[in-house]
Amino acid sequence: MYDAIVVGGASAGLTASLYAARQGLKTLVITKDIGGQALLTDRIENYPGFEHISGFDLISKFESQAKLYGAEFVYDEVTQIVGEELACFLVKSYSGEYRGCAIILAFGKTPRDLGVPGEQELKGKGVSYCAVCDGPFFKGKTVAVVGAGDPALDAAAYLTNLASKIYVVHRTDRTIGGEETINSRNESGRVEFVGNSKVKAVKGTGKLESVIVENISSHEEKGLASDGLFVEMGYTAKTDFVKNLVQVNGIREIMVDREGRTSHPGIFAAGDVTDSPYKQAVISAGEGCIAALSAYNFLQKMRGGSAARADWKAKH
Amino acid sequence: MYDAIVVGGASAGLTASLYAARQGLKTLVITKDIGGQALLTDRIENYPGFEHISGFDLISKFESQAKLYGAEFVYDEVTQIVGEELACFLVKSYSGEYRGCAIILAFGKTPRDLGVPGEQELKGKGVSYCAVCDGPFFKGKTVAVVGAGDPALDAAAYLTNLASKIYVVHRTDRTIGGEETINSRNESGRVEFVGNSKVKAVKGTGKLESVIVENISSHEEKGLASDGLFVEMGYTAKTDFVKNLVQVNGIREIMVDREGRTSHPGIFAAGDVTDSPYKQAVISAGEGCIAALSAYNFLQKMRGGSAARADWKAKH
Repeated sequence: MYDAIVVGGASAGLTASLYAARQGLKTLVITKDIGGQALLTDRIENYPGFEHISGFDLISKFESQAKLYGAEFVYDEVTQIVGEELACFLVKSYSGEYRGCAIILAFGKTPRDLGVPGEQELKGKGVSYCAVCDGPFFKGKTVAVVGAGDPALDAAAYLTNLASKIYVVHRTDRTIGGEETINSRNESGRVEFVGNSKVKAVKGTGKLESVIVENISSHEEKGLASDGLFVEMGYTAKTDFVKNLVQVNGIREIMVDREGRTSHPGIFAAGDVTDSPYKQAVISAGEGCIAALSAYNFLQKMRGGSAARADWKAKH
Repeated sequence: MYDAIVVGGASAGLTASLYAARQGLKTLVITKDIGGQALLTDRIENYPGFEHISGFDLISKFESQAKLYGAEFVYDEVTQIVGEELACFLVKSYSGEYRGCAIILAFGKTPRDLGVPGEQELKGKGVSYCAVCDGPFFKGKTVAVVGAGDPALDAAAYLTNLASKIYVVHRTDRTIGGEETINSRNESGRVEFVGNSKVKAVKGTGKLESVIVENISSHEEKGLASDGLFVEMGYTAKTDFVKNLVQVNGIREIMVDREGRTSHPGIFAAGDVTDSPYKQAVISAGEGCIAALSAYNFLQKMRGGSAARADWKAKH
């Protein structure tokens, strides 16, 4: 039986668990992985306190600080949360069940799927959603990037350091912003723009072998022989498993008030998964802190204790 | 002419200026001093990223990071803000006048005055509002502490390391919480509790000489010969100079929405001076970031540009 269960292990979730554990709450973090979108950045320059730091290093500091105060960690995906008697909750993951009286949802956003045949089967077997994370596996190989705008071009530019051939599949036939950057690195013609096109399917036995691309005008199809496909379609809040418990907005973000409270008493939320207007590491951290203090106050009230002191001092 | 003028130089103001300057805004910070309440803590353990750090060191990092991106600093107190034509503002300080099109109010809270005769004249001449800051000036001397609850006792406990004699003036005659801590350090009887009493005046020529104390029941007065008086009456939002511009709540905190917007277009606020529910360094930093991004969007809209990207990536 935990006081607080934090779902998610990036800036918001780790800060929430640091504060919850430091306030003396028995705290469990359940998360698929540590770091979230912070890991996508190899140089963060705008987190106050560090002129520059890699996302990995910053998040590792958050993690060790939370563990220092006794937060426990389970590396798994939460599949269901059930409200039980006495205002407490049963949290189910693939491998276990945990009980807690306050829940902090801080699992961020998830890369959007392409939604084509073969994608689910070949995830992690050539189909990737993070060029910075998985790019190094494709050194000297052929890859495709699908998506639009800056994220796709950033990924393609990054991959020019690694792959021998890069297809960039995009829907428009116009020159897309930032193409010049790629062209400047493209003396050897390693980058090929496949415009006016969409990915229709991915194929391969046990691992990706071919990306099937359809021309939007002519409906002609062709297969691009590729070892990797990087999907850069943006991010989405995967909140379906809690939408029966907490109110979400039109883009499935969990709605919170300024105290990090959701529509369900005892369930709090913080970070990118919420409807807060901007998404930045330091904002997520601040919101994680708010959610943890609100969870603490909620538990204190439930148990007849006094609320958290809200002032600055580090001792409290 | 500045794009953004930030009033205040602690966690919220420095983070706001870091973000504003990094977004390419010509940014001026006007502040009496750097650091605010963070400086009161010699060991901060709950700012994510640092297992422990002094308030001074943390704030110095914030400051140098803001300067790295070109934020300019003026060390002065803002006395008036006037809305001008074209939605821009004139900001007056004691020594100068500055123009900016977006304002970010982030000047935190200020120690509450005692409100007794002699106090204003002897401020900084024996009368102090920060034991951790000024305590070392009173090594081997006699001091008094006035206030209630934990902050006053924390100050008294801290001063046992320095002063030869410490009077603790408090209004109740009951034992007050935490007195045991002080008694444990009080073998030599250096700490004297003056209960059931209030400070009526402070006296001295050029420097504090005596604290006049009145017994609340008997109305008897006596003078405590003291070199220092530490006033620990809590903190207040000194927002009188902007209350004609922006809406404040019952305890004079500036009211903001979740985007850090005040009731006046173009004026944003962040940190302890706002009506946000909890006051912590990481929360102030997050709010400073939000205010800066909202100020950026406000200016972009005014000038017909596109809004800030709200996603995580450090490059943007």
